[in-house]
Amino acid sequence: MHGERFYTLAASCPDRTGIIARVTGFFAEHRGWILESSFHADAAADGRAARYFMRIEVKADSLPFMLTELRARFAPVAAELAMDWKISDSAVKKRVVIMVSKQEHCLYDLLARWQAQELNIEIPCVISNHDTFKGFVEWHGIPFHHVPVTPDNKPQAYAEVQRLFEESHGDTMVLARYMQILSPELCAAYPGQILNIHHSFLPSFVGAKPYHQAYQRGVKLIGATCHYVTAELDQGPIVEQDVIRIDHSDSPDDMVRYGKDIEKTVLARGLRYHLEDRVLVHGNKTVVFR
Amino acid sequence: MHGERFYTLAASCPDRTGIIARVTGFFAEHRGWILESSFHADAAADGRAARYFMRIEVKADSLPFMLTELRARFAPVAAELAMDWKISDSAVKKRVVIMVSKQEHCLYDLLARWQAQELNIEIPCVISNHDTFKGFVEWHGIPFHHVPVTPDNKPQAYAEVQRLFEESHGDTMVLARYMQILSPELCAAYPGQILNIHHSFLPSFVGAKPYHQAYQRGVKLIGATCHYVTAELDQGPIVEQDVIRIDHSDSPDDMVRYGKDIEKTVLARGLRYHLEDRVLVHGNKTVVFR
Amino acid sequence: MHGERFYTLAASCPDRTGIIARVTGFFAEHRGWILESSFHADAAADGRAARYFMRIEVKADSLPFMLTELRARFAPVAAELAMDWKISDSAVKKRVVIMVSKQEHCLYDLLARWQAQELNIEIPCVISNHDTFKGFVEWHGIPFHHVPVTPDNKPQAYAEVQRLFEESHGDTMVLARYMQILSPELCAAYPGQILNIHHSFLPSFVGAKPYHQAYQRGVKLIGATCHYVTAELDQGPIVEQDVIRIDHSDSPDDMVRYGKDIEKTVLARGLRYHLEDRVLVHGNKTVVFR
Amino acid sequence: MHGERFYTLAASCPDRTGIIARVTGFFAEHRGWILESSFHADAAADGRAARYFMRIEVKADSLPFMLTELRARFAPVAAELAMDWKISDSAVKKRVVIMVSKQEHCLYDLLARWQAQELNIEIPCVISNHDTFKGFVEWHGIPFHHVPVTPDNKPQAYAEVQRLFEESHGDTMVLARYMQILSPELCAAYPGQILNIHHSFLPSFVGAKPYHQAYQRGVKLIGATCHYVTAELDQGPIVEQDVIRIDHSDSPDDMVRYGKDIEKTVLARGLRYHLEDRVLVHGNKTVVFR
Repeated sequence: MHGERFYTLAASCPDRTGIIARVTGFFAEHRGWILESSFHADAAADGRAARYFMRIEVKADSLPFMLTELRARFAPVAAELAMDWKISDSAVKKRVVIMVSKQEHCLYDLLARWQAQELNIEIPCVISNHDTFKGFVEWHGIPFHHVPVTPDNKPQAYAEVQRLFEESHGDTMVLARYMQILSPELCAAYPGQILNIHHSFLPSFVGAKPYHQAYQRGVKLIGATCHYVTAELDQGPIVEQDVIRIDHSDSPDDMVRYGKDIEKTVLARGLRYHLEDRVLVHGNKTVVFR
Repeated sequence: MHGERFYTLAASCPDRTGIIARVTGFFAEHRGWILESSFHADAAADGRAARYFMRIEVKADSLPFMLTELRARFAPVAAELAMDWKISDSAVKKRVVIMVSKQEHCLYDLLARWQAQELNIEIPCVISNHDTFKGFVEWHGIPFHHVPVTPDNKPQAYAEVQRLFEESHGDTMVLARYMQILSPELCAAYPGQILNIHHSFLPSFVGAKPYHQAYQRGVKLIGATCHYVTAELDQGPIVEQDVIRIDHSDSPDDMVRYGKDIEKTVLARGLRYHLEDRVLVHGNKTVVFR
Repeated sequence: MHGERFYTLAASCPDRTGIIARVTGFFAEHRGWILESSFHADAAADGRAARYFMRIEVKADSLPFMLTELRARFAPVAAELAMDWKISDSAVKKRVVIMVSKQEHCLYDLLARWQAQELNIEIPCVISNHDTFKGFVEWHGIPFHHVPVTPDNKPQAYAEVQRLFEESHGDTMVLARYMQILSPELCAAYPGQILNIHHSFLPSFVGAKPYHQAYQRGVKLIGATCHYVTAELDQGPIVEQDVIRIDHSDSPDDMVRYGKDIEKTVLARGLRYHLEDRVLVHGNKTVVFR
Repeated sequence: MHGERFYTLAASCPDRTGIIARVTGFFAEHRGWILESSFHADAAADGRAARYFMRIEVKADSLPFMLTELRARFAPVAAELAMDWKISDSAVKKRVVIMVSKQEHCLYDLLARWQAQELNIEIPCVISNHDTFKGFVEWHGIPFHHVPVTPDNKPQAYAEVQRLFEESHGDTMVLARYMQILSPELCAAYPGQILNIHHSFLPSFVGAKPYHQAYQRGVKLIGATCHYVTAELDQGPIVEQDVIRIDHSDSPDDMVRYGKDIEKTVLARGLRYHLEDRVLVHGNKTVVFR
């Protein structure tokens, strides 16, 4: 971490020789100062071709041009390497829409990080299927939208969520213990943009009441998983996980309580990686350049 | 954890045979239902005599009398064993006064736990040497006291803190990243009642700027320590500690950020142990019946 | 841990009031010095009745009689409480038969602990389906039995294993990365006596090649599980688990390597708990009094 | 990890623009296939100038020349960047001399890893100030040298150790719980080549009996530290650390036992990083490209 404005290139392309040299050569040619760089060759496996991943931070004022021209000049290099790529600007705050239900821990945690400027984001709004946190969110000067979800109104409710996200110019949607399953349409509309925190160490204990499942099985550690949301429940690419030790004296309620500490920490770490363009999706897996 | 009302005996006495039998015999005689019990014999060492520690939770409505009579009837047993003891009632919420300066993370974390009733406490007030969190605290319906501390007014300032704590009928004072050193008088007035969170893995990096000290030394893990405050800075009995992995790419600012996640978790765990009478002090060490 | 000879009572019984008082009263009556004691009430759940678990270490020479008489005198107390119970003597080394295939890590680890007298056991023999470690084991003065297992000879092979275990007066069988599935007969013959180390964080990745399964799913932590062997593969009561962090740069081979460090540590911890009578089985779960 | 032969460049140089482009451009020019690459800019601090660190693995058979010519051709690039550098060949096993006293755990652990070819090394000899492990080491076909160390013979003893190390063409010396303090001359002769495992989480508990120190202080976690040996006791650059949780019931002897598990794991990890040229020393700190 450093205090300077920088551009971040996050990219992947088919593996071949000379990729780093080509990309860093481009920056060197323009005297771009590379602050941080990470590279990873993902071997061919299971029908996936070998693919190369990279993330490069370049100091903004070391380059003799602005972001638009950087993108224009880099485009031919990217084309040459058949790259999927994007370049973001650290001076432009990402817009994160938070979805929440009735549990405090992730919401308070995210707002504390936002208040402390630890997360360099805008929160254009919080959306909830309950109005529990209306006052708390609005006290922070953040708009709060109550969008109830019932068995009958799901299509309309998720259409409304999507409308609010679009209206907010959201970059990222965070399900901060949002206890409803998003519609397949919403999942499909924002691939790699919706982060969920699941309260188990996936792939164990998919679905409802994972702590109760963990209690039944008698495991000695419980965990939480931050993953991208896809249409298939709890099956999206995993971004971050962690666990905590429990023992025989812990009831399911104790596990719920311990689990919250893991959930909020794992969500915050996963979100940070995502916001800093450190997460590159490869099929159903992620490359995370911490 | 369970939902029933219970009384908690926390006690220690010189070690001898028959202690458990005597104490649990007392409860059995009155048909007291023991929900949880922990025992520990601390061996004689370094001039300390061998001492026996215990914590017993008894279901309130299993006993044929109320707390006052329980205490009266238990007193002779305790006297016989030369015990230091107390019995608390889970239905009586402990009163926790929070001291804070300008950092959000511990304060937000504690208030979220209080809101979620995860911590079964009253917060009669928050005291700060800055007015940063006045609005936030008051939004929660909690009184906020701004007690500035300057090099010149320390005795008066800490006298005022003590007055507020007494007026609040506080049981416990929590320094939730309170960035001033309490007066020796205040420390002496509330032994085993003031909890601090220190942002290093004690005994490493005592004093100021521990993350910068850690950066200088090139350690690979950083930590936080929850301890009772004594007049000697950062030397009080340790209640809880934890660490997080860092590496060469982490600046002191990164460490500060990572450290916050450890600090708030360690403080919350230490506070919970304290509130549930799970921490018994023995010289400069603690027995923690988790 | 302490250096004195002691007897360990490990027991469980239906929950009711007065259990601790009755049991510790028995020891107090004979002036038995309790070195360590643990109690746990397991709530009624899923059709299981509430049950009480305990483990008590009593200093051998504080009692006025020997083990045989202790058992005889305790029997009526146990009967009164409808207890499942056993009392073991720390001076009698448990006899542990190790089963191994071709991987070094767990075998070397166990023998090092045995050499260092960290594990207070006899190893009457090592049994393997390969002869890889014959020389190494025999160098330690331990008999080595090569019992090949083929698709055709399984019943005979496991009959031979059982014969060797009986002949060795084995208390415990440890599958130290033994890569064959025991016969249902063998599993049934020694419930709660056969410990396995499974190379995944169960219940994730049951069965073969768990690290490859973990790689496919893109998890961020991998683990190992020490459990009692039952006829149902990888479904027995879990004794101990732990995990280690991996990332996108780790191949399945890397995971295998990291995993070994977790496997041997988790197996050694689980084995120690088992040998010290710290593990009490309750249905398909365990109470572990660490 | 992968199975192919590769060359590893480990280098550092003053920070400036274009370093990655220059170095990877050199490899690209010769169609060198980069398997893994890591870069780190260490900011100027405390009188240290900003410095750039890198580690690059290039597939050996992708280059049109052998190692000697690679070095010759790379030398001008390195000179241009004022680099400290070395290139090693994965096909050449490093030669690791193990120093041990009377404790099994690290020695057994290292030999198991060597047997399993998990550590790709030669062990030309084991040196000890006791003859405890002579038989065990020789059974593995490894020469064992007993070099007693007494208060009177230290200069001669360490001269003999140095002679044996030289005669063995040792690359690395590993103090696997070697309980003597090396002479300043020996430390000075092999900077960055001697790895020690210290049985505490440095900088806490420097010197003798760290577990007893930890017990006195009442810490809740204990640790181990792998570091390069310098003339100043326990002050050398830290390569790897880890910790394990303890509690009030653990005696110093328990801590010693738990600690061993951490010690051997931390030593093995640190040694692996070192052997794979993942550790670059910068003043009294390390960059570790895991």
